[in-house]
Amino acid sequence: MVRLRFSLELAYQIGEWPCDFIFNVQAAHTPCQRILNERLSITQPVPCTHYTDVSGNRFMRLRAERGALTVRYEATVDIRHYVDQPDQLMELPIAQLPAEVLPFLYPSRYCESDALHVFAAREFGALPKGYSRVLAIQRWVRSRMTFKSGVSNPNTSALNSIQQGAGVCRDFAHLMIAMCRAVNIPARFTSGIDYGADPALGPTDFHAYVEVFLSHRWYLFDPSGTAIPMGFVRFGSGRDAADVSFATIFGGLQSFVPVLHIEAIADPAQGLDMPRHRPEALSTDAGFGSAV
Amino acid sequence: MVRLRFSLELAYQIGEWPCDFIFNVQAAHTPCQRILNERLSITQPVPCTHYTDVSGNRFMRLRAERGALTVRYEATVDIRHYVDQPDQLMELPIAQLPAEVLPFLYPSRYCESDALHVFAAREFGALPKGYSRVLAIQRWVRSRMTFKSGVSNPNTSALNSIQQGAGVCRDFAHLMIAMCRAVNIPARFTSGIDYGADPALGPTDFHAYVEVFLSHRWYLFDPSGTAIPMGFVRFGSGRDAADVSFATIFGGLQSFVPVLHIEAIADPAQGLDMPRHRPEALSTDAGFGSAV
Amino acid sequence: MVRLRFSLELAYQIGEWPCDFIFNVQAAHTPCQRILNERLSITQPVPCTHYTDVSGNRFMRLRAERGALTVRYEATVDIRHYVDQPDQLMELPIAQLPAEVLPFLYPSRYCESDALHVFAAREFGALPKGYSRVLAIQRWVRSRMTFKSGVSNPNTSALNSIQQGAGVCRDFAHLMIAMCRAVNIPARFTSGIDYGADPALGPTDFHAYVEVFLSHRWYLFDPSGTAIPMGFVRFGSGRDAADVSFATIFGGLQSFVPVLHIEAIADPAQGLDMPRHRPEALSTDAGFGSAV
Amino acid sequence: MVRLRFSLELAYQIGEWPCDFIFNVQAAHTPCQRILNERLSITQPVPCTHYTDVSGNRFMRLRAERGALTVRYEATVDIRHYVDQPDQLMELPIAQLPAEVLPFLYPSRYCESDALHVFAAREFGALPKGYSRVLAIQRWVRSRMTFKSGVSNPNTSALNSIQQGAGVCRDFAHLMIAMCRAVNIPARFTSGIDYGADPALGPTDFHAYVEVFLSHRWYLFDPSGTAIPMGFVRFGSGRDAADVSFATIFGGLQSFVPVLHIEAIADPAQGLDMPRHRPEALSTDAGFGSAV
Repeated sequence: MVRLRFSLELAYQIGEWPCDFIFNVQAAHTPCQRILNERLSITQPVPCTHYTDVSGNRFMRLRAERGALTVRYEATVDIRHYVDQPDQLMELPIAQLPAEVLPFLYPSRYCESDALHVFAAREFGALPKGYSRVLAIQRWVRSRMTFKSGVSNPNTSALNSIQQGAGVCRDFAHLMIAMCRAVNIPARFTSGIDYGADPALGPTDFHAYVEVFLSHRWYLFDPSGTAIPMGFVRFGSGRDAADVSFATIFGGLQSFVPVLHIEAIADPAQGLDMPRHRPEALSTDAGFGSAV
Repeated sequence: MVRLRFSLELAYQIGEWPCDFIFNVQAAHTPCQRILNERLSITQPVPCTHYTDVSGNRFMRLRAERGALTVRYEATVDIRHYVDQPDQLMELPIAQLPAEVLPFLYPSRYCESDALHVFAAREFGALPKGYSRVLAIQRWVRSRMTFKSGVSNPNTSALNSIQQGAGVCRDFAHLMIAMCRAVNIPARFTSGIDYGADPALGPTDFHAYVEVFLSHRWYLFDPSGTAIPMGFVRFGSGRDAADVSFATIFGGLQSFVPVLHIEAIADPAQGLDMPRHRPEALSTDAGFGSAV
Repeated sequence: MVRLRFSLELAYQIGEWPCDFIFNVQAAHTPCQRILNERLSITQPVPCTHYTDVSGNRFMRLRAERGALTVRYEATVDIRHYVDQPDQLMELPIAQLPAEVLPFLYPSRYCESDALHVFAAREFGALPKGYSRVLAIQRWVRSRMTFKSGVSNPNTSALNSIQQGAGVCRDFAHLMIAMCRAVNIPARFTSGIDYGADPALGPTDFHAYVEVFLSHRWYLFDPSGTAIPMGFVRFGSGRDAADVSFATIFGGLQSFVPVLHIEAIADPAQGLDMPRHRPEALSTDAGFGSAV
Repeated sequence: MVRLRFSLELAYQIGEWPCDFIFNVQAAHTPCQRILNERLSITQPVPCTHYTDVSGNRFMRLRAERGALTVRYEATVDIRHYVDQPDQLMELPIAQLPAEVLPFLYPSRYCESDALHVFAAREFGALPKGYSRVLAIQRWVRSRMTFKSGVSNPNTSALNSIQQGAGVCRDFAHLMIAMCRAVNIPARFTSGIDYGADPALGPTDFHAYVEVFLSHRWYLFDPSGTAIPMGFVRFGSGRDAADVSFATIFGGLQSFVPVLHIEAIADPAQGLDMPRHRPEALSTDAGFGSAV
């Protein structure tokens, strides 16, 4: 188990017109991710609606008025990982996939898998099925994409990234998801923050990674390779970034660079490990069927 | 109330390799659409899984073997319509939208509203908000698109349709949805069959239309203008055609033209009307809040 | 006649690997643009090839080595304008267009007129033909596009600009050209610098404008509306920016902001006017047939 | 030398409105392609303009009236080939390319090489330069594309083909050209008809192939692999299909399937060979510099 304590601060300056926000910056409630404590504060005295969707994603909605708005959140979470042997993880035949998993085979806004079937079949169609094929897709994404800010924007999709060959973690994730779905492997987009991000890439930031459904569970992949998967805290899971953006904003405003901190609390006596790179397959998902 | 009796038959010839199917061709269970009777038959003796998602959409999944496969479905449904005065229907501020409605503000695979914000703001940004603005969007779509088969394909999106200027009901629906979302009006894609389709367009076929969220409810729009909205039977609702395709097929096969029949059963004594074009706003959705 | 004196300076820092450059920054030789004097200097002692293409565009090619490279050019040019009454300018039937003009009806990299035929026909197909229709296209471009740096990049095309709704003079020009060609009006891309640019947009910069073929001649249009057409100095004309980029560079390097100066030399005694906005149609093209 | 005799017939039915045509269906005049005899007939008594552009492409323009229009052309041509050893052909440094060749480094409508630089660099950047790298690009195109009618249309570009993975000879050519230019190898589009086309693909049709500039000359490549390069008769060369379409049509009409015939006249006594597949590099271009 790992214990992570983190905080984040989002700051905006709203102009003449009010702005609507939908935030997805709280740790998700999942069977594997337990929130020990959390604290949320908003500097404007506006009404605020909280809701949780069927996937356990937590959203907070508010309408901010002219002036400064700061949202602060801090939490401590315990994350338990399923650790499996990669070579035992199978791609399930479509006929055996749980119904809830099927939508993650379909194309979505930033993962145009329908337009990439032929491309993906040529690259990955002949590989043996299973975890190793997903790793091959991840390797391909890394060989095609350079990590670089300022090349992509919020409208950038997998098709765009194939051409541009560069982007940030979100773009790596979208491309990997599109390729998985294009060869009929369910894949979804997960957002959060993570411990252990490569300091060469700047201060701790939000992170996007990929979950792929194999055997009876969603397994974690970090296509941009910039973090330690054991150190991920999940905020939201969805089809792509359209579902779980950390802040969806309606209206014009000025926004400042988010400030994030995260630390791992290791204590072997309590069974609390430091996040580390591991060769096994990791999942933070309860799974389906009898697996757990 | 209208009562509609319909049947459909889908036929395929599967080759050497089995094919997985996900069908969405059964009448949805909704508060306004009651199924009086239905019958489903499948000509191959294969296991078949049925499931219903959170929106009430019904899916049937099966893996078909080599040879012919025919799926037949027939049902009689009663549909009750909310009928409202258009000029009383408002666009809700984002802050007041029900949480379940928010995902229908986001871009999706075939409705790239994020890439069309500027375009839509120029066309529709200055219009008074409400039902009349949605009608203006529908008129614009009709002025831009010609109904024509063979121009579009299953990968065609709203951005493509703007260029091509022609397509089928699915393309009209995607374009209208993208434009609505681009000006922050929630809109979703609905599939089904309908009574009263223009016979000039050929035999009865599946139909796609649009629902727009106004005041406290989803209202029906038929951007292709090829049918009578009162005569719609709903199979599925979702973000776009990726969610509620009548048949999602994994594998190669030969498919035949679907055969559909539909008739209206009118009986004024029982309060059963013929579907007809009406100037009011129509909804077959239970609505949110105190509205019903 | 206007007399313009200008200078420009382009500076680069080349790294370990040599870089090839193709510059198009010298005043073009055309019947209406006479070069009174010019001076060109290059700070690296490398061989340099000069050539002029069939359109009178002048190119300079060189391979620069590691270190700094500065290219300076200054010239004084006299420009004579054909001034015509807009209402007498016709769109020629295709059958009567000079052969040299036909390629400017075809789609090009950044002006995908083939994909925009339907769109353009809906917007402009019903308008009376002639100069006024071209003005209508120009007005439409201005109503759709906001002048803004940093939104577009060198790969941005007319199709992209329709979505983005913002860009620089190059993007305005590409969009106007695409729309003209889409309704069968020959249009080409012209680059240069100009006197009288709006100082609110920053220091003098390169400029891109549009020439449209009407009656027997190419007429000037400035879709971004940021300059005074009488003050344009032509460097190159082509299908789009792929043909007459001011610098096409092969290799990696650091480039600095170009420094440009331009002044008008007015002397009524010599018949030298100040550039000014004029309501008539302007051309700096010798024309075809008996027109001159 | 090969001698080819061919004929073609294009038939159209024009409706109420006249249609403008620009045909490019006559054998080009080039130093290596000599026209022994030719005959052209047009069934409508309309004026017809012939012109030849700087590349030797021959165009014929006419405006056809209501009713049937048939264009028949037949010719006998002698084609002489430069035959070179592939391993002696070099990619020239940009600094040494003839000025006339430079435009074929630039992106064009259907060959978006600017958007594919990163992609191409990853696929082909590390390969040794020269003829073998061009062959590697051709092999890659063949491994990515399936020959199939009805998948692409006249607006299909190289970017589209990467996704679709299927198309006709025109699409194969555009993709190969885009990839060559993206790694700074000049490449152009050539249209014509050819002897020896694979009969499995249907009756003799127009053909599109690629010429790549190596050492001092343009060399022939047939990326679709459906014909015998020695049996090509050249109609036109340009940046892509926008320049040398066999018929550019302005207006609505009905067109019929073209009828083409071609035969090779072999006579060893006269030095006339049968076209055959050869392992050497072939060119039908006079070349630049001292090479010839």
